[in-house]
Amino acid sequence: MATIGKQLFTTLDAGGTLTVEIEEVSFPDPTGNQVLVRMEAAPINPSDLAILVGGADVENAEYTPGKFVAGMPAQANAASATRHGLKLPAGNEGAGTVIAAGEGEAAQALMGQRVSCLPGGALSQYCIADAAMCLPLGDHSAEEGASAFVNPMTALGFVENAKRDGQSAILHTVGASNLGQMLTRICQEDGMGLVNIVRKSDQVDALKGLGATHVVNSSDADFIDQLTGAVRETGAFYGFDPVGGGSLVDTSFLAMERVAAEQMSEYSRYGSNQMKRMFIYGRLDTSPTILTARYGFGWTLSGWLLSPFLQSVGRETMGRMRQRVRDNLTTTFASQYKTRVTLEEMLTKEAVLDYREMRTGEKYLVTPWA
Amino acid sequence: MATIGKQLFTTLDAGGTLTVEIEEVSFPDPTGNQVLVRMEAAPINPSDLAILVGGADVENAEYTPGKFVAGMPAQANAASATRHGLKLPAGNEGAGTVIAAGEGEAAQALMGQRVSCLPGGALSQYCIADAAMCLPLGDHSAEEGASAFVNPMTALGFVENAKRDGQSAILHTVGASNLGQMLTRICQEDGMGLVNIVRKSDQVDALKGLGATHVVNSSDADFIDQLTGAVRETGAFYGFDPVGGGSLVDTSFLAMERVAAEQMSEYSRYGSNQMKRMFIYGRLDTSPTILTARYGFGWTLSGWLLSPFLQSVGRETMGRMRQRVRDNLTTTFASQYKTRVTLEEMLTKEAVLDYREMRTGEKYLVTPWA
Repeated sequence: MATIGKQLFTTLDAGGTLTVEIEEVSFPDPTGNQVLVRMEAAPINPSDLAILVGGADVENAEYTPGKFVAGMPAQANAASATRHGLKLPAGNEGAGTVIAAGEGEAAQALMGQRVSCLPGGALSQYCIADAAMCLPLGDHSAEEGASAFVNPMTALGFVENAKRDGQSAILHTVGASNLGQMLTRICQEDGMGLVNIVRKSDQVDALKGLGATHVVNSSDADFIDQLTGAVRETGAFYGFDPVGGGSLVDTSFLAMERVAAEQMSEYSRYGSNQMKRMFIYGRLDTSPTILTARYGFGWTLSGWLLSPFLQSVGRETMGRMRQRVRDNLTTTFASQYKTRVTLEEMLTKEAVLDYREMRTGEKYLVTPWA
Repeated sequence: MATIGKQLFTTLDAGGTLTVEIEEVSFPDPTGNQVLVRMEAAPINPSDLAILVGGADVENAEYTPGKFVAGMPAQANAASATRHGLKLPAGNEGAGTVIAAGEGEAAQALMGQRVSCLPGGALSQYCIADAAMCLPLGDHSAEEGASAFVNPMTALGFVENAKRDGQSAILHTVGASNLGQMLTRICQEDGMGLVNIVRKSDQVDALKGLGATHVVNSSDADFIDQLTGAVRETGAFYGFDPVGGGSLVDTSFLAMERVAAEQMSEYSRYGSNQMKRMFIYGRLDTSPTILTARYGFGWTLSGWLLSPFLQSVGRETMGRMRQRVRDNLTTTFASQYKTRVTLEEMLTKEAVLDYREMRTGEKYLVTPWA
C-alpha cells in the first residue's frame, strides 16, 4: 500500500538551469528500522538553501504554481558540477507523526508518535526516516519540534567540542541567530565563557536580555578593540563561524593574537605560541575567506560539520545531547520563525527573494498540510 | 675576557623608520651549556628577511657603509607594532668554530669543533649558542654546514608529521626551492609519495632530474587538471605551502576535493568526507590567503613552524633527524647559494634589492670574515 504525497525536488542541469518543483510521489512502505512520517513542519535552514537556491538568479527566474526555473551563473554552475543532472530532495529536518513503521523494534516503538526527524527530504508531505535518528516529541507541537536537530545539536556540539579540546570559552561570530541564542543559553547553563559577535545594536540588547555578558558589535568603529577586550576577559581562543566569506575569521584570529602578544615576554617574528582555533560551519557568505599575515603561525582553521562530529563523539554522548534537547525544547532550544508557508507558497517569487537573504531571526517554516 | 666583533641589528621605530646596521659588540663569555662560536657562514633565509626587510621601501632607502635606513609603509608598520623600538639580532642559523665554552659537559665537548648552530643572531662575527642545538660538522666546511638546520629539519619534519598522521603522500607547493629539492630526495629515500608544484618548465626538468615523478607547473593553462591528476595518482591529501598569500592553498584543496568527489557514490552538498589538510609554513607572499567555498567542509589549514613541531616529537626523534642530516650533509641535504657577501656587502642597495626577491635557487650566503 504505497502512500501518495507531494515532495519538493531541486535539479541543476549541466547547462546551468535550476528547476525547483513539487511533484506527486509514491512513498514506499518503511522496512527494518525505517518509519514513514507524515510531515507537519520543516524549517528552511541555510544548509537547505545551498541546494534550493545556491547562486541562482532568482530575481529573473520563471515562477509558475509549485515551480520555479532559474539560471545559474557560469561560475556557480561550474562549482556545482558534481550535482549536475541529479534530482535532489531537500530539507534536512522537520517534525511529523509516524504513520507506518518497519518491523524493527526501534521503528515499531515510534508508531503513532509525533517525532522530530532528519530525513534529508523534509520539504515533503511524507518522509522515510531512520528510527534511530528520530526524537519522540511527547506533547510538543510539530512546530516546536521542527528544528530540534540541526541547531540544537550543532550548538551543543560546539560546547562538547570545546570541552574535549580543553577550552573554557568560545567565540561565536553570529551571536543573534537562533543557533547563537541557543549557544548563549547553553554556555550559561554549562559555565562556558562566550563571546558573541553581532551586527546591530538591537542584537546587542537582545542577547544581553538573554544574559549574555560579552556581546561585540561588528558595525561599531572600534569593533576590533571591543573584540580584543572580550577575548582578553574570557580567554576565548576557540571559535565558530557560519559566515565563511570575508574577514570575520581573520578579525577573530587577529583579536586573539593581540591578547596573546600582550602576554609575551619576548618579541617573536613568528607570532605567539598561543594556539588559535576557528571553525567555519556554514557559508552564509559564499565569497572567499580572507586570511591575512597578521597573526603568525599558531592558528588552525577547519571546516566543521555536525554529522562527522556526532560520529566522533559516539552513541552515549549523542544520546545525552538528544535527551537534553528534548528536556528543554521550549526553553534553551526554542526556535522562532518569521512566517509559515506551504510547499507551493515557498516557491513563489516573494517568498524565495525573502528567505534566500537568510536574515538573522527571519527563518521560514514550511507546513505542507496547511 | 670579552670578545669584540661585528653584529647586524634591525630596529623599527614606532614612526615607521627601519634601521639595519652593523655594530661593534662585546660578546660575553659563555656559561653553562653555552658556547661562543666564531661564525664563518650564515644563509639569508626568507624567515630572516621578514625582520631584515619586511615590507620596507628599500628602493628609496638611504644606504651608507654598513647601514641602511628605510621607510616602512603605514600598514606594514602597524602590523609590526609588537617590535617597535626593539633592537633585534637577525639570522636564524649558520656555521662556525667553537672558540669558548661554558663549564657544562655538552659545551666543553664542542670546544674547538666546527659546528652548525641556531643562535638567532647568526648574522654576526660571533654568536652565543646553545650546545644542545649545535651539530658538530666534522670535516665539513662551514659553507656546507651553514644551512644544516632550518631547511633540512623542516623537510624532515614534513615527512615525520605526515607519517605521524598516517599519510603516504605529501603535496609541496614550491618544489624547486632548496627545501623542495631536499624534500624530493627524502621522499624518495623513505618511499613517501610527493607532488611538487613549480612555476617554470626548467624547474620541472630540474626536479625530474632529481628523480621526482609528479611535478606540476602552475604556469601551465591546465595546471588544476595536472594537479588533480597528480593528487589522484599519489593520494596526497596533505600538503605544505611556504607562500601563504594568494590561491595556492585554495587550488590544492580544490584538486584534492575533485579527486575525493570522483570516489563518492552519492552527492553531498557538504562536499566529501575525505579530510584535506594543508599547512602554511612561510609567507613568501604576504598578501592574504584566499579560501573559496568550492571544497565543502572536510578541510583543515594550519600555520606550521619548526620549533613547536620539534618540541612535539621529543628528544629521541629529533636526535635521529639530526643524525640523518649530518650523515647526508653534502648529498640529500646539500644547499646551493647564488653568491657570498660580507656583513657590509649584504647592506648595499644592490644586494638588498636582489635577495629580498627570494627567487628560487638564488639564496645569499653571508661570510662575515671574508
